[in-house]
Amino acid sequence: MTQLRPLAVTIGDPAGVGPEIVAHIMRREAELGLPPLRVVGERGSPVRPGQPDRASAQCALDALGQAVAMVRSGECSALVTGPVAKSAIAQIDPAFVGQTEFLADACGLPREDAVMMLAGPSLKTVPMTVHCALADVPARLSHNLIVQRSRIVHAALRRDYGIDAPRIAIAGLNPHAGEDGRMGREEIEVIAPAIATLREQGIHATGPHPADTLFAPHKRGSYDVAIAMYHDQALVPIKALDFDEGVNVTLGLPIIRTSPDHGTAFDIAGKGIARPDAMIAAIRMAGEIAARRAR
Amino acid sequence: MTQLRPLAVTIGDPAGVGPEIVAHIMRREAELGLPPLRVVGERGSPVRPGQPDRASAQCALDALGQAVAMVRSGECSALVTGPVAKSAIAQIDPAFVGQTEFLADACGLPREDAVMMLAGPSLKTVPMTVHCALADVPARLSHNLIVQRSRIVHAALRRDYGIDAPRIAIAGLNPHAGEDGRMGREEIEVIAPAIATLREQGIHATGPHPADTLFAPHKRGSYDVAIAMYHDQALVPIKALDFDEGVNVTLGLPIIRTSPDHGTAFDIAGKGIARPDAMIAAIRMAGEIAARRAR
Repeated sequence: MTQLRPLAVTIGDPAGVGPEIVAHIMRREAELGLPPLRVVGERGSPVRPGQPDRASAQCALDALGQAVAMVRSGECSALVTGPVAKSAIAQIDPAFVGQTEFLADACGLPREDAVMMLAGPSLKTVPMTVHCALADVPARLSHNLIVQRSRIVHAALRRDYGIDAPRIAIAGLNPHAGEDGRMGREEIEVIAPAIATLREQGIHATGPHPADTLFAPHKRGSYDVAIAMYHDQALVPIKALDFDEGVNVTLGLPIIRTSPDHGTAFDIAGKGIARPDAMIAAIRMAGEIAARRAR
Repeated sequence: MTQLRPLAVTIGDPAGVGPEIVAHIMRREAELGLPPLRVVGERGSPVRPGQPDRASAQCALDALGQAVAMVRSGECSALVTGPVAKSAIAQIDPAFVGQTEFLADACGLPREDAVMMLAGPSLKTVPMTVHCALADVPARLSHNLIVQRSRIVHAALRRDYGIDAPRIAIAGLNPHAGEDGRMGREEIEVIAPAIATLREQGIHATGPHPADTLFAPHKRGSYDVAIAMYHDQALVPIKALDFDEGVNVTLGLPIIRTSPDHGTAFDIAGKGIARPDAMIAAIRMAGEIAARRAR
């Protein structure tokens, strides 16, 4: 096995829990057996933990841009991002919605092509819609959206996770997946036809499955990834099951990017109690994907 | 302690997994140390497991009515219901929506007063809206609905679970609880004012909490019950965490009623592989509530 190029790791917002988590990991680097890391996000001015400001947001944004460049140039093999304060960065750059969208822009791809997957020991799951009001979800779902994003998921599971024929379980939108149209017709009009298209394309897609049982223990072994229709349908189960080890992986981009599936946690920043487990899991997963692509 | 009057246990649809689960439990009654049980739902005609029909639905409906009468008369102390096929019963009685609503009708109360709580070893949770399309949820939420149902939950946790000052955590509707109105305004316009009203009434209600972290392990210890805004927001986490021991409890009625939180499972009926754990948990919980009320 050739030596892996280092992973670029950003500390995220310097006022959040990112810096202490990364410092903790760097102290234990040898013991943890992690791939080589390059930490990005040094701070010129002092930062008060838990007190984000324009300077800390600017620092997070600069580090992100710098780290992306290091990966795009080939200097680093993958990107692992610490948590940022989206709304603080948006005050500097109104086009900023989140790190995932920033990466799509940086790679010159449409934002729709950057697909967020949440991965933990219990579950991999992908929401089809993310940061929109629940009332807007039904109108945002479309045949194209589900087919395109499921195809990106399928390709990524093959390429980056070594799953030859990924089993993709697709959730319904409504309770009991609509019960044959009695509680909503999106399953009949949108989701089932999208699944049919995916199957015609040779993808092992099933559903629409009632969401409430899809994440139950006896069902989780029956698929490689669960496709959810909206943010909380995916995030509730992964955080209930795998909170401390949940990794956010961006699929569909040329670069590899993972992130711990938690936020800046300003309320506990600087107290030394933030758990590094999710960041460690994110680093391991990025390293594994990079090693797989290097083979 | 006085001898507890028996619990009335219905087998649900005879073609589902109810009969074999109840039979299994009756064989192990002494060993399991359960309260005395009275099984309701004998069948005159033969039934093919997994093949519900009008006769099996009629049998389930009759048993339910009979068991309710036994509890209302005081002959039995509580009701534990096996799973039925709602749509099959609705073909006999178009007013039938579910067993919970049937019980409200039978007790002469408005259906809104019968509140479904899901309870397991990890979590108690109550959805404010239940069997409606996801697109209809935002319009169904109201200040009154949240206040009234939360008050019913509060009273039940005090009366039936012995929790003197229940801590009630109320979820938001939108991702990240709307992030100050950036992704939906229901938190600001409906949910937060309802929480304020509850607090004015001396109820320890908090929120609106982002739903994705509300069910994470470190949050679950901070409340006695999580109030969810819609079916899957409550059902996804309870089934992910407590599938085999999830109990459906009806709050707000004069009678005690529990049920296993699973369906008829027609696909495995008659095979002897259905797990009795949730029905056992439902029986234990009904017995504990009955014993508490008898004190």
